[in-house]
Amino acid sequence: MSLNPVLVAMDLKDYIRDVPDFPEPGILFRDITTLLAEPGALRYAIDALADKVAGLAPDYVAGIESRGFIFGTPLALALGCGFVPVRKPGKLPAAVFREEYTLEYGKNVLEIHQDALGTASRVLVVDDLLATGGTAAATAQLIHRAGGTVVGFGFIIELTFLNGRARLPEGTPAVALVSY
Amino acid sequence: MSLNPVLVAMDLKDYIRDVPDFPEPGILFRDITTLLAEPGALRYAIDALADKVAGLAPDYVAGIESRGFIFGTPLALALGCGFVPVRKPGKLPAAVFREEYTLEYGKNVLEIHQDALGTASRVLVVDDLLATGGTAAATAQLIHRAGGTVVGFGFIIELTFLNGRARLPEGTPAVALVSY
Repeated sequence: MSLNPVLVAMDLKDYIRDVPDFPEPGILFRDITTLLAEPGALRYAIDALADKVAGLAPDYVAGIESRGFIFGTPLALALGCGFVPVRKPGKLPAAVFREEYTLEYGKNVLEIHQDALGTASRVLVVDDLLATGGTAAATAQLIHRAGGTVVGFGFIIELTFLNGRARLPEGTPAVALVSY
Repeated sequence: MSLNPVLVAMDLKDYIRDVPDFPEPGILFRDITTLLAEPGALRYAIDALADKVAGLAPDYVAGIESRGFIFGTPLALALGCGFVPVRKPGKLPAAVFREEYTLEYGKNVLEIHQDALGTASRVLVVDDLLATGGTAAATAQLIHRAGGTVVGFGFIIELTFLNGRARLPEGTPAVALVSY
């Protein structure tokens, strides 16, 4: 299924800025703020991602705080889905499920409202970036605990050399618009 | 100018959940996650806000981390604008302007990329909630320092009893969809 059969391809890399040594020396940061600032590139990114995931027929798009919120809500609107925020600890006001997971340096925690999803919901997980996959895998756990089924993952950027796909649930489709 | 002349009014309060004693005892938290989860209510919120601010003709929508990201990007898309994230400290990779401001308890810091805006840009500031106005006022300062002109503020919810409008730049329009 294609929502945008006549979508003309655009190279989003032209709009992503490389910032060396951020957040620490030796890391090349892929900065999407330059993409967001260009209305045509922003529109294209959302439409292209919607086009690639529409066939997964999600009921909800779950966006991971914070940059997953930027792409998650417009994607939910493009697909006619509800949006579910997956948040850093202490931000969601009602009862939550909580997942702690390991990062390269230290630990991180994400939360989801226990009542965020209807029963048997199909959920698409969205973030700006697939790096090591730890954040996306923890989010998949949260969705499972909240009674949902993860039908796919959508990213703007994938850092293929970090092999994050290996940490995602086996057999679940993962789409990225741009790979480095 | 109206983008949606036939937009049928919907009471968004029906979709906003009240959570007592969050984030601390005695505070009644207005939870928008229940609104986000309903595709029709989410679509309506974006369209209604776009309708009210389209006449301000912004070039950019600036969204305040994190919940301002949820509404800011779809609003930018609806208006054909670029999106500019205003972020918590240490998150933006390139050179930033930084504003420290006072909260009821303690201080907070927000940052914007120094090159986020074109010259003479018209900027609409978006957040989910207008409370005391401190966050929105600090964001207006950042936009001014980055060379932009704040042409208006857009919120989903306004807590009128906190009189946040008094802290916003005088004469600049501020729109909220729902007031308590």
